[in-house]
Amino acid sequence: MGEKKLIGVDIGGTTVKIAFITQEGEIMEKWEIPTVLENEGASIVQDIADSIGSKQAEQSLLHEEFAGIGVGAPGFIEEETGLIYEAVNIGWVNFELSKQLNEATGYPVYVQNDANLAALGENWKGSGEQYKNVLAITLGTGVGGGIVVNGEILNGTNGMGGEIGHMTIETNGGHPCNCGKTGCLETVASATHIARLARERQAESKYLQQLNASEISAKDVYEAADALDEVAQQVLDYVHYKLGMAIANLAIALNPAKIVIGGGVSKAGDRLLNPVRAYFDQYALKRTSEAVEFSIASLGNDAGVIGGAYLVKQGME
Amino acid sequence: MGEKKLIGVDIGGTTVKIAFITQEGEIMEKWEIPTVLENEGASIVQDIADSIGSKQAEQSLLHEEFAGIGVGAPGFIEEETGLIYEAVNIGWVNFELSKQLNEATGYPVYVQNDANLAALGENWKGSGEQYKNVLAITLGTGVGGGIVVNGEILNGTNGMGGEIGHMTIETNGGHPCNCGKTGCLETVASATHIARLARERQAESKYLQQLNASEISAKDVYEAADALDEVAQQVLDYVHYKLGMAIANLAIALNPAKIVIGGGVSKAGDRLLNPVRAYFDQYALKRTSEAVEFSIASLGNDAGVIGGAYLVKQGME
Repeated sequence: MGEKKLIGVDIGGTTVKIAFITQEGEIMEKWEIPTVLENEGASIVQDIADSIGSKQAEQSLLHEEFAGIGVGAPGFIEEETGLIYEAVNIGWVNFELSKQLNEATGYPVYVQNDANLAALGENWKGSGEQYKNVLAITLGTGVGGGIVVNGEILNGTNGMGGEIGHMTIETNGGHPCNCGKTGCLETVASATHIARLARERQAESKYLQQLNASEISAKDVYEAADALDEVAQQVLDYVHYKLGMAIANLAIALNPAKIVIGGGVSKAGDRLLNPVRAYFDQYALKRTSEAVEFSIASLGNDAGVIGGAYLVKQGME
Repeated sequence: MGEKKLIGVDIGGTTVKIAFITQEGEIMEKWEIPTVLENEGASIVQDIADSIGSKQAEQSLLHEEFAGIGVGAPGFIEEETGLIYEAVNIGWVNFELSKQLNEATGYPVYVQNDANLAALGENWKGSGEQYKNVLAITLGTGVGGGIVVNGEILNGTNGMGGEIGHMTIETNGGHPCNCGKTGCLETVASATHIARLARERQAESKYLQQLNASEISAKDVYEAADALDEVAQQVLDYVHYKLGMAIANLAIALNPAKIVIGGGVSKAGDRLLNPVRAYFDQYALKRTSEAVEFSIASLGNDAGVIGGAYLVKQGME
């Protein structure tokens, strides 16, 4: 029968990604099912269990050929018990995800926050070697973080570890954030707010004036900067400056070997990485800078399921 | 013979503190020897070994009654090997502390950075219960930090973990820091710089005018504020504000259960703790605030040797 296979599950607000993965981290099979939000997400666990069972039957794979399930959920997690304190987008409150999914499938179940799980996945199978101290940053609709310390996810005391999008980086006022505070990192460095910063200065920019204000995206801002639009360049310089300094402040505490930047904005690649690294070097300590390598996340949407597989693998040791 | 005893050693620039400690963390005997800096600190290891041997003989204790030695040194440490990359104040560069002290004493030797070791000590035997996620901050001549994540010290990739005194908190210029940057937390919240901030405004303050400028200390500033001196109150409000926000930014990433503040400035007690906590709550996320308890470090100068004993105890498990 060979080595046991691993099951990775990544629960999102719209779809649940599921994959069968080898112990080397190679995806054998991956698919998605819709996340059914009715009745506070009451059917999600059974939907996942049924889907795994069907796929195994379809592929003539036996239950015992798999070692367990690693799951990411978008919420605050109690790591040891796999309890979801709260997953706002799904409707779960004090939801015993680990226990329920274990009962529905018969597998050991390991649960993590989705951003942390993606960090684990990137660290295991993403670009380059695996490190014991990692800071993973997701620049998407919001700004998320996953932190690995001494080879383990920093989940924190009540599942709030790595919520780096809410570090205060603008102290004189700053823009309102969804969290209720103002001046959070997310209000500058998320895709949403890069677009907002550009939109606020649209009238000054020949390039951006050609676009419909409501449709300006972070991608447009990078493209405008490529076309040497000064407004876009200034907006991005400000974003890179604030992001570089915030990451430096974190790295001074965490001293990571690797900083991985993912999410939609990371598609800007070196146009993001190089200036952020330059500002980082300006604000980090010399030895901190020397220890760390920056990279763009390379697993994309697979990072969560691969991280889930890694959780199972870790649990088997 | 009973349970094996533990040896804690805390190497400072002036003295080496040594203690025999029970497995319950009670100090049986503690003493100090001078740190001999000649020849790049070449005799320190043998001095420690000799002093431990003499004390054991004096107390009719046998070599085998002790389990090992836990040592804190003021420098950048490679935790796994006990190598000191660099200890500027002592003169060690790539110094094999663990190996040498093991050879000189025959004991297993565990090495940590001194600030991290004090954090471990405070977390083990300081006020209250032991936590798995802790942020310890020392406000002294500089600002140091020790971070515990998942029950283990965050030492980082090249021994730079927890260097929180060098987070940038003033972005418009800011005062020069010993590290070569400007606007570091240390340039606002250390005892040295609290005094400087007050000295810069001495002419405005009736209370501070009575003092010799070069002798103004952080303690004087707190006393002036107690006497309702407005300048001192403003200076301290600024210090508490910047410190509270910086700690909130760290806690948003680390989600600790406990934040312990030590060092000379912490003698201000609630006059420091209450305003810092208020600013912290303003800048932290609600769940992050709910999870954490603030306290003043209670072990004083014993934190290092007690942390050393804890390292040995951990190593025995």
